[in-house]
Amino acid sequence: MPDERIASVDVTRVAQGSTTHNEDVLAIEEPLEIRVAWEDREKNISVTMRTPGDDDDLAAGFLFTEGLIRSANEIQSIRHWGSPNVVRVALSPGARIDTARLDRHFYTTSSCGVCGKTSIEAIRVVAAPLPPTAPIATEVVHRLPTVLEQNQSAFRATGGLHGAAICTATGELMRIREDIGRHNAVDKVIGSLFRDGSTPLSGSVLIVSSRASFELVQKAVVAGIAVLASVGAPSTLAVELAREFGLTLLGFVRDGRFNVYSGGVA
Amino acid sequence: MPDERIASVDVTRVAQGSTTHNEDVLAIEEPLEIRVAWEDREKNISVTMRTPGDDDDLAAGFLFTEGLIRSANEIQSIRHWGSPNVVRVALSPGARIDTARLDRHFYTTSSCGVCGKTSIEAIRVVAAPLPPTAPIATEVVHRLPTVLEQNQSAFRATGGLHGAAICTATGELMRIREDIGRHNAVDKVIGSLFRDGSTPLSGSVLIVSSRASFELVQKAVVAGIAVLASVGAPSTLAVELAREFGLTLLGFVRDGRFNVYSGGVA
Repeated sequence: MPDERIASVDVTRVAQGSTTHNEDVLAIEEPLEIRVAWEDREKNISVTMRTPGDDDDLAAGFLFTEGLIRSANEIQSIRHWGSPNVVRVALSPGARIDTARLDRHFYTTSSCGVCGKTSIEAIRVVAAPLPPTAPIATEVVHRLPTVLEQNQSAFRATGGLHGAAICTATGELMRIREDIGRHNAVDKVIGSLFRDGSTPLSGSVLIVSSRASFELVQKAVVAGIAVLASVGAPSTLAVELAREFGLTLLGFVRDGRFNVYSGGVA
Repeated sequence: MPDERIASVDVTRVAQGSTTHNEDVLAIEEPLEIRVAWEDREKNISVTMRTPGDDDDLAAGFLFTEGLIRSANEIQSIRHWGSPNVVRVALSPGARIDTARLDRHFYTTSSCGVCGKTSIEAIRVVAAPLPPTAPIATEVVHRLPTVLEQNQSAFRATGGLHGAAICTATGELMRIREDIGRHNAVDKVIGSLFRDGSTPLSGSVLIVSSRASFELVQKAVVAGIAVLASVGAPSTLAVELAREFGLTLLGFVRDGRFNVYSGGVA
């Protein structure tokens, strides 16, 4: 049985001066909308970027661990609803969601649609494809993790912070920020240059200590960044968005090697 | 100058059969509310769990990378507003936020208040302190990362998925789930047992491949889990919440060592 959680993409692997083209297996990232129906009401409670599979467990677990339901008896049924990316939880007679609690205590983190394609379409409203730039040099890519590491002062102290650095095309550090949330680290470093009037950051490179999700590619594209290099793995949707907008996306940038998922290097 | 991003907590370090008590430096995690004011309107746009510092960059970067503003000229001022955890962005005359875009495209991920303390208080509404249980055995803790690793089939293929496993107090695997989002992996594994009617999961252990944030401790506490073991670092707020609710919180559980941040081991 194929595993619905993973997919193959074409990749160029660069290591020890050699380049090979083959396939890489990535984690699938797609939005899931969780809808709850009770009495005569129906409400979209959450959209989360998730890996498909066990969506019924995810919906039930989310409602339970966020304190919206307390017992499995409160659930009458959980079903996909017109889309593999929408799940509808029908509550049992008498059960209900405290919507006041929802509105008070839930917070937002990013934007998306109800499927990968609409998530990508939504980015078109706020960003255009990037202008072509000269490909980044392989030797610059190899230096990026060291630039990040040497400047992550709070990570050194704690081992618990994500770093995001923006460098020039030749690998000179422009700015670095750290945060417990990888999206916050990226917002901080982009925001700092944005406030200086330095956006779009054409020709610049963003290196992150984390994995590369859809959300991080979105933020790079909106800022006009040419290259996103991540120490960890990208998701499928991150690769699709990068290819669509002409962002060079590099993953597993560490230990003298890296993979090219979108764009190219010189 | 003290670094506003980090703080010290008491910790017990267990490694190679020896136990030492001293201090550990952790990344601070606190909510930040981003408010935007324009014309005669003012709106809470987002609450995100972040590490304090560069909040003005974070607010500006968030508004820019989410496509809500396009130029630094649209910002008149950014100031903390009555709290170190609230930042208010006043837009320049003529600038405005498209609130329709906000309502359509933003999604929710978790619950919190406007400071760490109110975030913890909010959990009291949905969860009681955990009943005392026998402390987990050190040799069981050492085995947990292997149990997780050996059962993370999709991570092995991709290197890009978080794993969350629930085990018995003796380290037997009950269930495991993987997801690109660590909170989703935890919701899936808890949700799966919740749907079986197995909650509260008293006496059980949750091991996660990621860092331990406030959000993950919240989910463990609501599910009645006794021990949260994370391969990575915890945040300050995760430790506070764990101590408040009597959850045993273990961090850096790997390579034959671990740190005890809350509770104790036998």
